[in-house]
Parts: sequence; C-alpha cells; structure tokens
Amino acid sequence: MALIVKKFGGSSVATPEKIKNVAKRILSEKAPDDRIVMVVSAMGDTTDDLIALAGEVVESPYQYAREMDMLMTTGEQVSIALLAMAFRSMGQPAVSLTGAMAGMRTDSAHTKGRILGLAPKRVHEELDKGNIVVIAGFQGTDAEGNPVTLGRGGSDTSAVAIAGAIGADTCEIFTDVDGIYSADPRIAKGARRMREITYNEMLEMARLGAGVMQPRSVEMGQLYGIPIHVRSTFTSEPGTIIREEYTVEEKSFIIRGVTHDEQVSKITVLGVSNVPGVAHKIFSALADANIDVDMIVQSIRSAESNMTDMVFTVATIDAEEAKQVVEGISAEIKASAVAIDNDVAKISIVGAGMLGSPGIASRMFGALSSADINIEIISTSEISISCLIKGGSVKDAVNRIHNEFFPGEA
Amino acid sequence: MALIVKKFGGSSVATPEKIKNVAKRILSEKAPDDRIVMVVSAMGDTTDDLIALAGEVVESPYQYAREMDMLMTTGEQVSIALLAMAFRSMGQPAVSLTGAMAGMRTDSAHTKGRILGLAPKRVHEELDKGNIVVIAGFQGTDAEGNPVTLGRGGSDTSAVAIAGAIGADTCEIFTDVDGIYSADPRIAKGARRMREITYNEMLEMARLGAGVMQPRSVEMGQLYGIPIHVRSTFTSEPGTIIREEYTVEEKSFIIRGVTHDEQVSKITVLGVSNVPGVAHKIFSALADANIDVDMIVQSIRSAESNMTDMVFTVATIDAEEAKQVVEGISAEIKASAVAIDNDVAKISIVGAGMLGSPGIASRMFGALSSADINIEIISTSEISISCLIKGGSVKDAVNRIHNEFFPGEA
Repeated sequence: MALIVKKFGGSSVATPEKIKNVAKRILSEKAPDDRIVMVVSAMGDTTDDLIALAGEVVESPYQYAREMDMLMTTGEQVSIALLAMAFRSMGQPAVSLTGAMAGMRTDSAHTKGRILGLAPKRVHEELDKGNIVVIAGFQGTDAEGNPVTLGRGGSDTSAVAIAGAIGADTCEIFTDVDGIYSADPRIAKGARRMREITYNEMLEMARLGAGVMQPRSVEMGQLYGIPIHVRSTFTSEPGTIIREEYTVEEKSFIIRGVTHDEQVSKITVLGVSNVPGVAHKIFSALADANIDVDMIVQSIRSAESNMTDMVFTVATIDAEEAKQVVEGISAEIKASAVAIDNDVAKISIVGAGMLGSPGIASRMFGALSSADINIEIISTSEISISCLIKGGSVKDAVNRIHNEFFPGEA
Repeated sequence: MALIVKKFGGSSVATPEKIKNVAKRILSEKAPDDRIVMVVSAMGDTTDDLIALAGEVVESPYQYAREMDMLMTTGEQVSIALLAMAFRSMGQPAVSLTGAMAGMRTDSAHTKGRILGLAPKRVHEELDKGNIVVIAGFQGTDAEGNPVTLGRGGSDTSAVAIAGAIGADTCEIFTDVDGIYSADPRIAKGARRMREITYNEMLEMARLGAGVMQPRSVEMGQLYGIPIHVRSTFTSEPGTIIREEYTVEEKSFIIRGVTHDEQVSKITVLGVSNVPGVAHKIFSALADANIDVDMIVQSIRSAESNMTDMVFTVATIDAEEAKQVVEGISAEIKASAVAIDNDVAKISIVGAGMLGSPGIASRMFGALSSADINIEIISTSEISISCLIKGGSVKDAVNRIHNEFFPGEA
C-alpha cells in the first residue's frame, strides 16, 4: 500500500477532455490499495482570465490583493469539482476539498502567501472512507479564514506540503516535461534526463535558471524529507526523483547539470572613487529597495587613478530600478555614470561532487574559451560555478560545457 | 443610522460595467453612517455555464450533487470579489465573504440546501471596521464544512436570513421589476404597483403564480420580522415593502392582487365507481409519488349510474407522471380512462381583507361570466379564491377581474 500525492498543473486539466484523461490515467495506474491525494491547479488560462476580468472592473487589481485571492481561488475550486466528478463517474469514490478544507494554513500575505502549517484531519478522514481526495493547489486560508494564494509555483508547494503533512511516501509532480535534464533539452542536443538528483543540487539548479521546479517546493520537500518525482503528464515513464541522497549510482557524474539564465542584466557603475565604504553604500541602497544583487565584481582601473568600476548583476526585471537607485547616490559615491547591459546571460554548472574534484572550474573555462566566448564575471558556491557571458553566446556555451562534462552523448 | 441588507441578482452584476454601476449606485444612495451588507448572485449566466461545463465532463452532473455545489459556489465568489474591488476602487472600504465565512449554516441537501442558522460574527466585525460587507448569496456550508447551494430563489433567501440574523432594519431585493403589482403588468393594463403587502398575502400570491418572490424568502422574512423591500435595479424609486401589517392605508383595497398560473394541468379520471375509499386511493398513490395535487373536484354523473369523474390539477411538469400513477391503479379503482388537459390556467384573487367582506367570490365569478369564461373548478383559502379556466382566456380573465376590484385604472 502506498500513500501518494499526485499534482497536475493547469495545462494538464485545461479542458473537460483532459480532466477525464487525468482521471482515467490515475485509475489505470492505481494499485487496489493505493491511497491517493490529487493536488490540482486551475484549468488552463483560468487564472489569467480571472485577472483580466478584474482588470475590467478596476485598474491595477493587484492593489486589492485580498479580493484578488477571493477571485483567483475559484479557479482551482472549479477544477477539483470537475475532477472529483470524473472519478465518480468512473466508479471511483472521490471528494474535492478546497485548500481551506484540506487544512492548509497560510500567513496573510495575499497573492504571495507562505504556508504556516497543515491540519490534514479531513484529508485522512476522506482517505479512510476510500476516497481519492482532490485538493485545490495554490491556496490556503489565513488565521481569520480569508482565502490566500501562494504565488508563483504555489501548486507544487501545496502538493509537497500536503505530502509532508500526511506522511506520503512520495509526491509526484506531473508536468509537460518528463523530468529534470542535465541541461535545457531545447538547447543542448545531448541533454540527458536524470533518474535522481539531490534537493541541494535541484535548489541550486532552480536558483540558477532551471525552470521546471520552483525552489520553494524543493525546500518544502527537503524540510519534510518527501521524495519529489517530476514526471510527464503524457507518458507513464518514470521521470526524475528529487531526494536527500542518491540511491542509484548509475554513473558518477561530478556535474549534475548545466543551467543558464537569460533574464539577468549587468549594471556598471563607472568611475567610482576607490575609498572604503563605497561598496557598502551601493549595496545597502539596493537592499533597501528590495533588489537582489547576484554577481559582483570590482575592478581597479589603474594604480594611479584611484578610480574603480563597480559591476554587478540583477534580474532584468529589476534593472531599471537598480540603475535609478545607484544614480540617486551617484553624487555621494562620486560615480561618473551608471550603465545597464541587458545582452548578457549567466551560465552555470551544478553538482555536489565538485567539492572533492579539483579542476572543474578550469574545464568549464576551457570549454568557453575553446568557443571564443569571453567571461565577464565569475562566481562560485559550494556546489556551483557561474559565468556571465554575452547573451548571444548562450546556446553555444551550454553545448560546449555540456559536452565537456557529459561527453559522447551529443 | 440604518443597517440595510441589499441583494442584487445575477442580471444586475452580469458584466464588469454593471458591477461598477451597482457600486456607484449604492454609494450615491448611502448616508454617511449607514451600515450596508450586500448579498450578490453569480454574474449573469455563470451558473448555467458552470453546469454546462460539468456536462462536458460527466453525464447528468446533478447526480454528483456535492461536487456540483463545490463547482457552483465559485460563481458568487467571483462576483463578490469583483464588487468588493469596485467599492474599494471608489474609496469605500469593503470586504467580500463567502457564505461559509458569513456563517451561513445549512443542512447537507446539496443543490437544494435549507438554512439551519447563521453565525454572523464575522459580518458584525467587518461592519464595525467600516466595511461594506459583500456576501455570496445562494450558498452556505453544512456541519462538515462542505459548500451547499440553496436551490431556486436561494439568493433572496440568503439575503433575508442574513438580514434577520444581524438584526437589519430592512432587506432590499433589487430586481428587474420595480415592485409587486396588483396583477402581471404585462397582461393587466391597469395593474398598479403596491406600496405595501403583508407576508401572508405575498406568500399566497407567490403560491398562486406571482413570480417576483419565491415563497421561501418571504417565509424567512416573516419568521424574523424583517421588512422586504422589492425594488428596481434601474431606478431609485421605492418599490413594494412586504411586512407583517400595513403602515399606510392609502386606500382600502380588499383585494391585493390578481394572479394567474398557466403551468397547471387538469387530470380527469373517468368513470370511477362511486364507493368509499376511491379518493383516498388516488391521492395517496399520488402523494407516494411525491406529486402535489392542487384543486380537486368530484362530480357524480347521475344518481343511477353510481359512477363519478374525479378531476384534479397538478403542475404541468408533473402531469404525465400523475397520469401514469393513476393508470397504475385504474383496475383497482375501476376507472375507465385517465385524460390530461394542459390547456387550462388558474386565476386567483388574493387579499386578507376578503375575510370580512362577503360577496367577493360572487364579484369574481361575475367578472368571468361577463366575458363568457367558463369556470371548471373553484377552490378557496382564507385569503384567496381560485378558478380553473381555459388557457386561452387568461388575458381576458385577468383584465376583467382586475377591473372589477381596481376600477378606473385601466
């Protein structure tokens, strides 16, 4: 007997036909004594449609975040009702529960709520009655009982949190890709699906641009020790299991993946006086504006000039604001100019094995150099190395580096 | 300071534009210290659209009544969120509450729930904060916390129940007609809007075919002693107030209204043996089949024949089943045939004043007779008299009777 949480995203339940297909698939795979909890997102574009509808009533609807949550939580409520009906029409007892009914408790940060805890009494009761329990993802309620949505990646986070709270054996995330790849398969020809990856590696890959899983849900899995199985909606093939440690050492890859992130911008602060406290002034001003700074490099022009250029990266979405923040203190730090460069990308390698393997960085730099790709900034963590390069070189860079660490598969 | 519940139906909030108009209107009429609770239905055809969507997933979705309620309750949740946003965008603090959050407790009769009680603590709290409280009509939750819809006329019933529970001064029902009329104004040229009507008269008129208010909500108003003000969505004119007793005796009309009901059918059971127990057999068989019988007449053909015809009326929707039920026992009661006549209508006059005014019935029959309209069956209650006539005579009959009791206004 297995207790399994299975999460299906909005594209998997976008139409009545797809909802029926999900129900059929689950029943065809279900062992007679399996206990199953489904976590489901809103159908297809429903959430976007609701946001657009709100936009016809008021300007900037997100300023009414509490009411946006009241509105948006209806999306999953529709899909859970329909999926529960589909199961019942196939002879399988099933019951739908909203996030509130499933005991999902959140803070009151409307439209970007954080999960505070789960009281899954009702979920256990319904499982004990023989039901498949269909729960609305992406949502919970605060202490006052107001609906709260969890923000981006919220349904995955819901699913993993529910799996943790009910002590599930595993949490399966069904998605339109069939697992976690060693690089983006749309770019790297030899990209291979991994059978397993650790939470730490997955977190680092997600942070560095791998789009399949949001870091929040991986952190939640790590917290509860729930294996997360990322697999395809369209096939029955196993995908990638994210867990604490490998159970299968199929091959000792030192590097688990090559990731890239094109949504980064480089900000250059030119001609700054090279005196103590300048870096502190710049980065505390950015922190006050709630802007995350990623890579940082300071370069001294020449010993005589006593001037320096300060270069750092931020998410492209924050670039314009970051420039304005720095310009606001440019008199104070005696900067001559502030420039934005959006034509950059960050390319990274991730792997827990690199800790004990010297020479990994040099192999990465060599792969880039062999393609005449210039490295603008380098940064490292315990389990990753990242390089900032020109935006146009991404595809070439990913393939070169991937071939270096996963040879013979291109 | 007044505490007022205002209910708007689905056609009043069918589009974003209409939602904004409702908010504007409420704010333009609101005295600074008025405390306002809005009860709102789903936008326009939303409920029908949701039912159709369920029909694409399963056949006969109403067999999964619990899940239908999970589905349908999203409709009002969308409109309350949008209306609360509209208020807030106009500078008016407002908050939306689902039926569950407003404390509406029901039984577990999904899709046709009955209200068991209301725990309006949250409603009072939100009013105390200065909010307009926007509550989802038509819905509540059972003891387990499952969403339950109230069935036909449910939003009116919600509104009146909430008004009762919070001790509102009045409950305003905004609708596409501007009040209760002495007869259907589409048929009777001189039909006049009443300023007041009693609960008992309104109940009798609703039972006898007046379509504006469902009996359930009028009963609820009577139970709590809440005046119900039926008024137009489109104008600011006062409509009709339904209350226990008249406060204004503008004119001593004995009759309050003329109603008609074309959705009735006459069933004739021919050639029944005139022996004791026959009527009991017929009507207990119909009661067992859950068919409401309305008017009944038994006519003896002749003293010699010892045969009788039994005639009764049922709602047209039940006629075919009623015929089959009676045919099923026709051997037992020795009936020679059972016939249905759908071309009939019931026309009624209602008024508490008729109790102390002899000759009312005779004036009604005279009005029909003057138009050569034959009366097939007559039935009476304490505050009403009804006649079954040919279906084609309805318009003429309503006008003749209305002119008799409300002269000089045609």
